Amino acid sequence: MHAELLIHASWVLPVDSDDRQLADHAVAIGGGRILAVLPSSEARASIAAREVLELPGHLLIPGLVNAHTHAAMSLMRGLADDLPLMTWLHEHIWPAEGRWVDQGFVADGTRLALLEMLRGGVTCFHDMYFHPEVTAQASAEAGMRAVIGMIVVDFPTGYAANADEYIARGLAMHDAYRGHPLVRVAFAPHSPYAVSDEPLARVRTLADELELPIHIHLHETRDEIQQSLRDHGERPFSRLDRLGLINPALLAVHMTQLEEAEIARLAETGAHVVHCPESNLKLASGFCPLAQLLDAGVNVALGTDGAASNNDLDLLGEMRTAALLGKGVAHSASAVPASAALRMATINGARALGLDHEIGSLEPGKAADLVALDLRAPHTQPLYHPVSQLVYAAARHQVRHVWIQGEALLRDGQPTRLDERAILDQARGWGERLGNFA
Amino acid sequence: MHAELLIHASWVLPVDSDDRQLADHAVAIGGGRILAVLPSSEARASIAAREVLELPGHLLIPGLVNAHTHAAMSLMRGLADDLPLMTWLHEHIWPAEGRWVDQGFVADGTRLALLEMLRGGVTCFHDMYFHPEVTAQASAEAGMRAVIGMIVVDFPTGYAANADEYIARGLAMHDAYRGHPLVRVAFAPHSPYAVSDEPLARVRTLADELELPIHIHLHETRDEIQQSLRDHGERPFSRLDRLGLINPALLAVHMTQLEEAEIARLAETGAHVVHCPESNLKLASGFCPLAQLLDAGVNVALGTDGAASNNDLDLLGEMRTAALLGKGVAHSASAVPASAALRMATINGARALGLDHEIGSLEPGKAADLVALDLRAPHTQPLYHPVSQLVYAAARHQVRHVWIQGEALLRDGQPTRLDERAILDQARGWGERLGNFA
Repeated sequence: MHAELLIHASWVLPVDSDDRQLADHAVAIGGGRILAVLPSSEARASIAAREVLELPGHLLIPGLVNAHTHAAMSLMRGLADDLPLMTWLHEHIWPAEGRWVDQGFVADGTRLALLEMLRGGVTCFHDMYFHPEVTAQASAEAGMRAVIGMIVVDFPTGYAANADEYIARGLAMHDAYRGHPLVRVAFAPHSPYAVSDEPLARVRTLADELELPIHIHLHETRDEIQQSLRDHGERPFSRLDRLGLINPALLAVHMTQLEEAEIARLAETGAHVVHCPESNLKLASGFCPLAQLLDAGVNVALGTDGAASNNDLDLLGEMRTAALLGKGVAHSASAVPASAALRMATINGARALGLDHEIGSLEPGKAADLVALDLRAPHTQPLYHPVSQLVYAAARHQVRHVWIQGEALLRDGQPTRLDERAILDQARGWGERLGNFA
Repeated sequence: MHAELLIHASWVLPVDSDDRQLADHAVAIGGGRILAVLPSSEARASIAAREVLELPGHLLIPGLVNAHTHAAMSLMRGLADDLPLMTWLHEHIWPAEGRWVDQGFVADGTRLALLEMLRGGVTCFHDMYFHPEVTAQASAEAGMRAVIGMIVVDFPTGYAANADEYIARGLAMHDAYRGHPLVRVAFAPHSPYAVSDEPLARVRTLADELELPIHIHLHETRDEIQQSLRDHGERPFSRLDRLGLINPALLAVHMTQLEEAEIARLAETGAHVVHCPESNLKLASGFCPLAQLLDAGVNVALGTDGAASNNDLDLLGEMRTAALLGKGVAHSASAVPASAALRMATINGARALGLDHEIGSLEPGKAADLVALDLRAPHTQPLYHPVSQLVYAAARHQVRHVWIQGEALLRDGQPTRLDERAILDQARGWGERLGNFA
């Protein structure tokens, strides 16, 4: 067999159906796709590769899928912390957004986020923010795989005047990226409390027609439930179900408030949950019953949320938090094992986005989105089980190489396309402007 | 003023009583002590230093105090994860300890832990393990500040045959390190369930006489409470209180199970709590009511626990988990702010160990134990509030310099005393031996 690139690593976690942990294996890549995953000894005998990369002490994993972000908000990282949710939103985040968020902000914020995510092994992200076509363009230029939310809210912002205009702008972006190799779109009605029934129903119809995912914040806090009971006489989940939105296209983000029947309904309908444990903790939103969801067979992906409420886009760290918190909440040390956390951050995210035929595991035929981590640091030695080490001990600075569709976007820890110095200069400039305003 | 070393940094968090965040400040060091913390402009005019270090974009903080470790257990990092506590202990950790733990294991495991901790900005640790004199010696050789537990259990191990022998060996170590500039000792009766009344009472008397701290696991799990109610007719806390151990010398580690009256009693007596949030999550031990403890005025320090149940010794990450989990458990986003998490990891740890006159903050007269982090990475930009950035976004690989008593033990990210290659070789060797056995 001929390959363009053959990568030998000490360990490979393909995230296949058996959660195999492979020692001394190689991944062969050609045409942007994975051609084979096989023992290094066999690969040396059978594969002629244009480039061979030897990575002793390294672990290869599928690229991580960050299933919920507000990438541009990286520019608001740490702007206002340790505040009650409503104070944070009403007195800090929303005023700052009203004053500053324009296309330039979104472009610079997205590039900062892309740089951080690539450096941390994220190869695909699912975003929701204003001016999404700017996020889409920055992602395409960076060679990052992305699913960009066509945001919809009822109220006017600098981006659009009303729900119809949000949807129209979104559909224009959808047309512009039709057939793009890396960038796709999803509908992103912000939340049941920010979008009324009519646009939600329209989103549902359009998503059906265009076969697109629907990205929504749902049951983030107890207040959200109580407000809905007051205003609509039903829980947000029931309202969405009545509108036909609890279906396999749905990515319901947060879900800290769940009743047994809702968990069963998620499982029955095939709707997906995106768990954001660090954001939920930081904003004291409540505890998502992760182990119960997994036990019920619900597909749960993992997201960092935006950097204003996390405060990073470190999906590797989020895996660890998901596994640890999942055990704590379930009162069971065997709940959410390391392999489950890794699945959440890879194949489950791919499945939620309808991309599991393409990404999420290292299997022949899939796109070559993969990450190499160097585990020879003191804090990842000795090494008994690679998946344990990855989830419970490794840190993202150990990410040394990142490929998306076969292209090296991080090589020896350095970005190949993104101009780190320029991005950091822009970020500092925004920091000075927002900091003086705050 | 003359100084041996003058460090200029973009930000300094001295962890003083006002939690000040100082921009463009300098720290002057001489004779292993902090001489002054002052604006850089003043320092340039008034201080003649033998060496001047300019650290633009860096943050200076006090050295971190890891108030609960089992350092040598680093060699069991990831040996057995995702298991119920009792399976983990009885079928994995204890058999492995019985088979492998000797002086060589403790020496190599401690050195691996020292390397990891130094690289992560930890300048003082509080340990509990077998063969503590080996841990003490390795720490002294490495130039690390340490408080080494004189372990006591009722049952025989490879280290001692009975409680009397544990205590005798501990006291010999105490004598050997009397007056040592960096290494001190504490009594470390393992837990109420592993030590009976008579040796506990003896420890209390000796600790009073020798003015030493007492380091104990307490109320780690609900099972521990139930077992004590069954065997002793009282909760472990009440039993220790009856034996006179709930006093200002006590460092009670874990405390996930607490009643209101116990919290009040901790505050009233001045006993200290060591919070280990990641270990508590990973072993599903329960949730320590951190915000309640802090509100009650209890001094709470922070520990990583051993690497077999964490799986790292990353106190910076532990600060973040403490702040995030503290908010989640308290249902309040303003609980456990970043500054409180930093205090836990510095001055509160120092106070718990009776060392707050010496370490825990950057103030003139204290020992020069300090850490410089480079915050110019994408994930710590832009920067609005240094303490938020440190706790919620920074990672330990950003630690570039570490000084203990004025000596640079990490310089430009490289250890100056420890032989990293040799330590990693030894760790790999143990990994092979234990891995084949498991």
